[in-house]
Amino acid sequence: MHIPLDRQQDVPLYLQIEEALRRAILSGVFVDGDKLPSTRTLAAELAVSRLTVDNAYAELASKGFLRQRRGSGAYVLHPGTLPAQPQPTSDASFPAERFTTLTSRLDGYPDTPLPDNIINFAAGVGSPRVFPQEEFRKILLSVLSRHAEEAFGYGEYCGYYPLRDTLGRILTAQGIPTHAEQVLITNGSQHAISLIVQSLLEPGDTVIVEEPTYAEALGLLRLHRINIVTVPSDRHGMLVEHLPALLEKHRPKLIYTIPNFHNPTGRCMSEARRRRLLALAQHAGVLILEDDFVGDLRYNGKQLPSLRAQAAPGAVLYVSTFSKMLLPSMRIGYLVADSEQYQQIARLKHVDSFTSSNLIQRALDAFVTIGRYDKQLRRAGRIYRQHRDAMITALQQHLPHGCHFETPEGGLFIWLTLPAAVDNEALMPVAWRHGVTFARGECFYAREQHGAHGLRLNFAANTPPLIEEGIARLCRAINEVIAAK
Amino acid sequence: MHIPLDRQQDVPLYLQIEEALRRAILSGVFVDGDKLPSTRTLAAELAVSRLTVDNAYAELASKGFLRQRRGSGAYVLHPGTLPAQPQPTSDASFPAERFTTLTSRLDGYPDTPLPDNIINFAAGVGSPRVFPQEEFRKILLSVLSRHAEEAFGYGEYCGYYPLRDTLGRILTAQGIPTHAEQVLITNGSQHAISLIVQSLLEPGDTVIVEEPTYAEALGLLRLHRINIVTVPSDRHGMLVEHLPALLEKHRPKLIYTIPNFHNPTGRCMSEARRRRLLALAQHAGVLILEDDFVGDLRYNGKQLPSLRAQAAPGAVLYVSTFSKMLLPSMRIGYLVADSEQYQQIARLKHVDSFTSSNLIQRALDAFVTIGRYDKQLRRAGRIYRQHRDAMITALQQHLPHGCHFETPEGGLFIWLTLPAAVDNEALMPVAWRHGVTFARGECFYAREQHGAHGLRLNFAANTPPLIEEGIARLCRAINEVIAAK
Ligand SMILES: Cc1ncc(COP(=O)(O)O)c(C=O)c1O
Ligand SMILES: Cc1ncc(COP(=O)(O)O)c(C=O)c1O
Repeated sequence: MHIPLDRQQDVPLYLQIEEALRRAILSGVFVDGDKLPSTRTLAAELAVSRLTVDNAYAELASKGFLRQRRGSGAYVLHPGTLPAQPQPTSDASFPAERFTTLTSRLDGYPDTPLPDNIINFAAGVGSPRVFPQEEFRKILLSVLSRHAEEAFGYGEYCGYYPLRDTLGRILTAQGIPTHAEQVLITNGSQHAISLIVQSLLEPGDTVIVEEPTYAEALGLLRLHRINIVTVPSDRHGMLVEHLPALLEKHRPKLIYTIPNFHNPTGRCMSEARRRRLLALAQHAGVLILEDDFVGDLRYNGKQLPSLRAQAAPGAVLYVSTFSKMLLPSMRIGYLVADSEQYQQIARLKHVDSFTSSNLIQRALDAFVTIGRYDKQLRRAGRIYRQHRDAMITALQQHLPHGCHFETPEGGLFIWLTLPAAVDNEALMPVAWRHGVTFARGECFYAREQHGAHGLRLNFAANTPPLIEEGIARLCRAINEVIAAK
Repeated sequence: MHIPLDRQQDVPLYLQIEEALRRAILSGVFVDGDKLPSTRTLAAELAVSRLTVDNAYAELASKGFLRQRRGSGAYVLHPGTLPAQPQPTSDASFPAERFTTLTSRLDGYPDTPLPDNIINFAAGVGSPRVFPQEEFRKILLSVLSRHAEEAFGYGEYCGYYPLRDTLGRILTAQGIPTHAEQVLITNGSQHAISLIVQSLLEPGDTVIVEEPTYAEALGLLRLHRINIVTVPSDRHGMLVEHLPALLEKHRPKLIYTIPNFHNPTGRCMSEARRRRLLALAQHAGVLILEDDFVGDLRYNGKQLPSLRAQAAPGAVLYVSTFSKMLLPSMRIGYLVADSEQYQQIARLKHVDSFTSSNLIQRALDAFVTIGRYDKQLRRAGRIYRQHRDAMITALQQHLPHGCHFETPEGGLFIWLTLPAAVDNEALMPVAWRHGVTFARGECFYAREQHGAHGLRLNFAANTPPLIEEGIARLCRAINEVIAAK
């Protein structure tokens, strides 16, 4: 294969290769299902390193132009190859029973995969194809061979110390001064939130959350019989001006907030509101729980100071996770807390489940320490940004009059608001018939009916061609519902 | 290297090779640190498969005659190479601050490794060297390459269905008829117990436990403010004749028991007592929690029917784990429950931490399904049995008058009782000075002082030469304390 490479150019070689291949696919030189040369062969032909070709292929795969099968090779996936357009016949095909629980309404879980022809905007995660499989595999292998005996034991109760230390350093570099001793490793950040709720709250206590908010936090609070009080939010996050009255009236124990690239809205809380929230909470003596689940995935705009970074010790608990920036199936999250609270939470964690997999913790620490995590963040950021932009373009092109959306500066989600005449109850079966699904806004509201006109759309997990087609389908469905009124 | 092999003999080839090498080591043909030929070389020389040599080396390693380093080879570890005998100078060397919390008293956790010269009988796990690293590595790799995308997601909330199904089949084969739908995967079985306690009990409820019992169950119950009522036990387990009065008086919600190879005593509850326990619990309408943490590790005697196998639906919750039979760092345990209870526990698990690592669950399922787990159980059983027997022989040889121990038919532990004149408080620093440590009996009693004369000794995690030397040291320490009285 001939690909002209310009070694003087600023554009990295792998991107030059990627572009040449992408053009070849788009122009029909390669068709769907064609096998590309092995990375070894192509690297030799082009006189570049295998890693360069690897990166080019990974880039193509993440854009949806390639399917990689280990041991078998890389196959062209023509962007024309979209999930078949389903026959828009009757609503009978909508599996209503699939959407009876909160979680299933949220993401189509559990347990039965979506039909092939449905484009899925409901997921709460990034794209597994962006994950650096090969590198992670290598690191896991090296942990298994070099530290097997240590990696096989329970390990330390608060988490693998070097990983806690690494996280402390990363946070410190991000402006949140943190020692390893303040970091507690948990089984995902849901577990961190759960441990905090269980250690520091009692049934009947009140928690303030911005609305809409992370559905599984609502579920957790409900199950522990915590009284949930909501604050409305706008483009700049929680409307903090409502807080004084609510603090006065409800005497909450905790304020739960997602200041960066909010789930489900994608919003960031403005700097002014962050300051005001901190001042109000401090004045009222209320603890803040800052959930920074995708904080490292910013695509534009400037980083905002974390709440914890600006707070007095003991005033803000911080939780985050590798689920979105890397992989959910690691089940590694963490919390940052100060002495008294830390001890109390750690005691509960100990009797709750001892440790998180020592093997995975060690692999993760190696991954972060040798700089792979940073590299991966840059890579994911670049790719997800393209996905976001593809969704915005498609929305601008297709969105019916009366719908609105916001442009997030990072994260995974775009929040779409329907006109008053259309609600999710009516839209969902029609959208399903058109071959697209989404996370229903109701899941993110303490009183479900309030979310009837909101949709959470995941752009990260989909490729641009899928996004374009999916948004076109969604908008046709919205138009159909409008027309039927 | 010349090793005469008899292919007609009943003894498998790998054991013939193992024996020849062991003799060579013991007779001084090889000395400490000698590198053995690679498995490939030796296999070629002996005209056997590499797997046969692999197995021979693994056998030697598990007996403590060999240290294997991946990528580097196998090195002789002469059984004479024991941890140096420490200088029995002063008690000052005993790090009392290390043993202030329950957990640290239990197993020397957390977080600072034991000094090199201490032989450790305190651990609560099997030997990491018995774990089939190479096979597990291969399986993990194949999951990573063949199912990466699926393995990277959260997966199903109740656990990876094929693994639940596999566990259901295993349990059914063991006489506990179980469907996948009754199996809930958890982050280790501590997590299973914790979820059960939290879902089905309220603070102030009473739980009956046999005494002594698993320390971390006591810790968990205490933290959740559960009222703990104890029943004494003897060689045949819980003294069930005490139950009627206790049930009458305390109206407990739950009876927690470890019927097989008990922690810490190694005992099995007799069949007659199992039946009586079930009848009494059923009559009183009290739920039983059966913790079968090492049930598959039986070395002699006949398998006893599980409580759950004999009970009405809903009467017995069953929990088990891969931590002891395979690896703690997988953090995969499970519980078996019936509809109502199952739903309630699963709901809590969902908001608690979603799922256990999908990656590890898939690897584990592959491991079990292709028969590796059975093979590994047989292997571990054979090796641990030798370790147990080595400890019994050493105890018979060295144990001072007035001490007693019981011979367990399986599991990991031997329970030793000291004479009235010696207690753990006095013994522990002396034992430490002699270079040996153990799990203090106090940890396993609801009222600590009651355990002052009991020691839990882990035989599984140590090799016979270490066991012999460690027991000799322990007995010298006991004698020293006796003499000082
Ligand atoms: C806002 C937010 N917080 C926390 C979590 C918890 O994820 P995990 O437990 O995988 O870390 C999620 C996952 O969806 C989330 O969206
Ligand atoms: C009796 C018993 N049950 C349960 C457990 C929990 O182990 P895991 O959470 O690793 O499954 C242990 C571990 O020591 C144990 O000894």
